[in-house]
Amino acid sequence: MMYLTRKEHFCASHRLFNPDFTDEENLRIYGKCAYPNGHGHNYEIEVTVTGDVDRSTGMILDLKKLGDIIDESILVKVDHKHLNFDVDFLTGIIPTAENLAIVFWNILSPKIPSGRLSSVRVYETPNNFAEYRGDK
Amino acid sequence: MMYLTRKEHFCASHRLFNPDFTDEENLRIYGKCAYPNGHGHNYEIEVTVTGDVDRSTGMILDLKKLGDIIDESILVKVDHKHLNFDVDFLTGIIPTAENLAIVFWNILSPKIPSGRLSSVRVYETPNNFAEYRGDK
Amino acid sequence: MMYLTRKEHFCASHRLFNPDFTDEENLRIYGKCAYPNGHGHNYEIEVTVTGDVDRSTGMILDLKKLGDIIDESILVKVDHKHLNFDVDFLTGIIPTAENLAIVFWNILSPKIPSGRLSSVRVYETPNNFAEYRGDK
Amino acid sequence: MMYLTRKEHFCASHRLFNPDFTDEENLRIYGKCAYPNGHGHNYEIEVTVTGDVDRSTGMILDLKKLGDIIDESILVKVDHKHLNFDVDFLTGIIPTAENLAIVFWNILSPKIPSGRLSSVRVYETPNNFAEYRGDK
Amino acid sequence: MMYLTRKEHFCASHRLFNPDFTDEENLRIYGKCAYPNGHGHNYEIEVTVTGDVDRSTGMILDLKKLGDIIDESILVKVDHKHLNFDVDFLTGIIPTAENLAIVFWNILSPKIPSGRLSSVRVYETPNNFAEYRGDK
Amino acid sequence: MMYLTRKEHFCASHRLFNPDFTDEENLRIYGKCAYPNGHGHNYEIEVTVTGDVDRSTGMILDLKKLGDIIDESILVKVDHKHLNFDVDFLTGIIPTAENLAIVFWNILSPKIPSGRLSSVRVYETPNNFAEYRGDK
Repeated sequence: MMYLTRKEHFCASHRLFNPDFTDEENLRIYGKCAYPNGHGHNYEIEVTVTGDVDRSTGMILDLKKLGDIIDESILVKVDHKHLNFDVDFLTGIIPTAENLAIVFWNILSPKIPSGRLSSVRVYETPNNFAEYRGDK
Repeated sequence: MMYLTRKEHFCASHRLFNPDFTDEENLRIYGKCAYPNGHGHNYEIEVTVTGDVDRSTGMILDLKKLGDIIDESILVKVDHKHLNFDVDFLTGIIPTAENLAIVFWNILSPKIPSGRLSSVRVYETPNNFAEYRGDK
Repeated sequence: MMYLTRKEHFCASHRLFNPDFTDEENLRIYGKCAYPNGHGHNYEIEVTVTGDVDRSTGMILDLKKLGDIIDESILVKVDHKHLNFDVDFLTGIIPTAENLAIVFWNILSPKIPSGRLSSVRVYETPNNFAEYRGDK
Repeated sequence: MMYLTRKEHFCASHRLFNPDFTDEENLRIYGKCAYPNGHGHNYEIEVTVTGDVDRSTGMILDLKKLGDIIDESILVKVDHKHLNFDVDFLTGIIPTAENLAIVFWNILSPKIPSGRLSSVRVYETPNNFAEYRGDK
Repeated sequence: MMYLTRKEHFCASHRLFNPDFTDEENLRIYGKCAYPNGHGHNYEIEVTVTGDVDRSTGMILDLKKLGDIIDESILVKVDHKHLNFDVDFLTGIIPTAENLAIVFWNILSPKIPSGRLSSVRVYETPNNFAEYRGDK
Repeated sequence: MMYLTRKEHFCASHRLFNPDFTDEENLRIYGKCAYPNGHGHNYEIEVTVTGDVDRSTGMILDLKKLGDIIDESILVKVDHKHLNFDVDFLTGIIPTAENLAIVFWNILSPKIPSGRLSSVRVYETPNNFAEYRGDK
C-alpha cells in the first residue's frame, strides 16, 4: 500500500449561491460566502495516487507527469479565474470545496497513467478542506 | 466517501502526571512533561466529518455551524486554561494528546448535525499529534 | 526599539485592471490578474506597532485591542468581499498588494492607541507580499 | 483506533538514477532529478503508530522513546549525508521517496515498543510526499 | 550588511498578571491571559546576528555554536517550564512576549562570539510576536 | 517606503568545505555540513525590492517579471544541482547561506527593472537563514 501525493496551488474567486434559493436562504445557508460579488481563496489541492512501486524506477508513477496532468486538465482552467463564471467543467455546479473535490476526481481519475487515484483534497483555506476518495 | 475537515486552535497548559505513580515514575514515563508547574502548547485540532454531499447546497454540513459546535462545546472550556485544573470534562483524566482526542470525540460525536464524525486529530506541537477515529 | 506584530486573515476577490488602459495593456501589465471576472486570495496582513514597553503591564499595547481595531476598521469591510466593488475605502484604487498596504496604513495609523504604526505587510499568497513603512 | 504521529527532519542529497538505464533513459524518467552531481532536500518524515491507549499512562507509547528510535536507527545515518553513497541500508536502492518510505518502514516496524507501525510518510518537499502503510 | 538568523522552539506555560493590580484590573488588561491557572504556548524564538562574513569560512559565525548558546543559556531553563515560577532570570518579570524578548536579548547579547546581536523575535503564536532590537 | 517581496524555491546539494583547511579543521568548523559526499536542502529565497508605487499601475514593478528574472538568472542554474560543482557563478565560493545571499544580490541588483534591490534572504532550512542588504 504505497501512496504518492502531489500538492498544487491556484487562486480563484467564487460565490456560494444556489439560484433556486431565495436571497435569505442563501445568506442563512452560506453566510458571508453568499455575498453577491463573491470572494476568493488561495486554493491548494492534494492529489494522491496509490499503486505498486515499479522495481526498476522506484516510483509508482512520474510525479512530474502527474503534475503536468493536474496542470493541463485543471489548473490552467481555474487559476486566476472566477469559479462560478469562467470554468466550463463547473457550469451549473455550486463551487463548494466538496463539489470541487468531486469534479477534480472525475477529471483526474481516468487520466492517471499508472496506479489509481486514491484521494483528492481541496483546501479553501489552511483551516478548511474537503477530501473525496471516490464512491467506495 | 466525502470528508470535510475544520481546523481550530487553542492555547493551554498541562502537566502529564499520574497521582498513582511516584514522582520518579512520573519523570521516567513523562520526562519533561511531568515537571511540577506544567508547561503549555498552542494546540490545533482537526475535526473531520464524513457524509453525503447535499445536492441542493453542495455541502455535507455547514462548516460555520461545525465551527460553532467546536467552539461552544470545547474551545471556550479549554482556551487559555490549565487542562489539569480548569476543565470539567477533563477531571481525573491525564491530558495527553491521545486522551484529549478521545474526550473531544465523545463530546462532538452526538452533536454532528449531518453526516457523522470521522476523526479528531489533536496537535500538541507541529511535530506531535494524536488522531482518534472512534471504536471501529 | 520594541516591535509588536499581529497577523490577521481575510478572503477576498480582486481584479487588477486600470480602466484608463486598453484591454491589451491591462493583460500585458497584469497578466492573469486582469482576467475579467477576477480571482481571489486568502490574504494575510501583519500589522507592526513600535513603542516603549509599559513597565507596569509589560506590553506596548493590548494586542487584543489592536486585533479589535484591525477587525473593526478593515476586516469586516474586506472579508469575503470583492475588493474592486464592495469596499468604500478602496473606491477608485487598483487593489494591488502595494495599494492595500498603503490604504490599510492610512486607516490604522491614527487609531493606534499607544506607540505608533511601524509597518503593514499584505500577503496575497505565501510567496508574494508588499510591506509599507510610511513616508519615511 | 488511536494513531500517534511523530514528525522528524533531516537534510540529505540524492540522485535518481538507475545504472541499468542509459543516460537518456535516466533523464527521460527522472528529469532534473537525474543530473549527475545530485541535489538535495530538507526531508520530513512522519511516523504513525496505532494501538490501544494505556489507561494508567494515557499514551499508546512514549513519544520521546519513539523519537529516539527514529533518531538512532534512521536520522543519524541519513542526516547531512548523500543517500546514494553514504547509507548502508540504502545500498543498491534508488532513493525515491517511495523507496525511502519502504526502507524506513522495514527498519522501524520491528522496533515499535507497543502498538504497531501504521504508516511512514516521507516528504521530499512540502509539495511531494510518499506514504507507505505496509503490505496490507 | 549581513544578517544570520537561527530559529528555536520551546513549550511553556505562563500567566499575565501583575500582583500590584486588582483581579479586575488584571482581567481588564490581560483578558484570558490572566486566568488564574495560566495557559501555555509553543514559543518560537528567532535570534538574528549581524556582522562581516569571514572570507575563509564564508560565515558570520558558526550557526551550530549560536544554537548551542541559545540552548544552554535559554532553552534548558524555559522549555517545559512555567515562566512565572520556574525560571530564575524571569523572577519578578511579567512574561509577556515583549519582556521575554528583552530578557533573552540581555542574556544573549554578551555571549555572541563574533558579529553582534541584531534582533530577538519571540512568537507566542504564529499570529503574535514581539521583536526587540536593543536600545537603538 | 514600499517593499515588495517574491519568494522562490529550489532544491540543491552542497558541502561546506574549504580546501585550504585540513579535514579536521573543516569538520570542526562546519560539523556535519563538511561530510565528504555533501547533503542538500530545499532552499527558499526571498527577494525584496523597494521603490515608489507607480500611480497608474499601483505597483513598484511587475512581480511576474521579477519572478522571471530570478528564474532565468538564478533558479535554472541552481535547481536540482550541486552547488559546489555545477554552478558557474559559484566557482571557488563556499556555498554557505551567507555567500549565496551575496552572490544572488550581485546577480540580481543590476537587473531590477524599477525600484532597487533591498534584500536577499536565503533559507537553508525553515530554521536557518541569511539576509543580505547590500553594502550600506
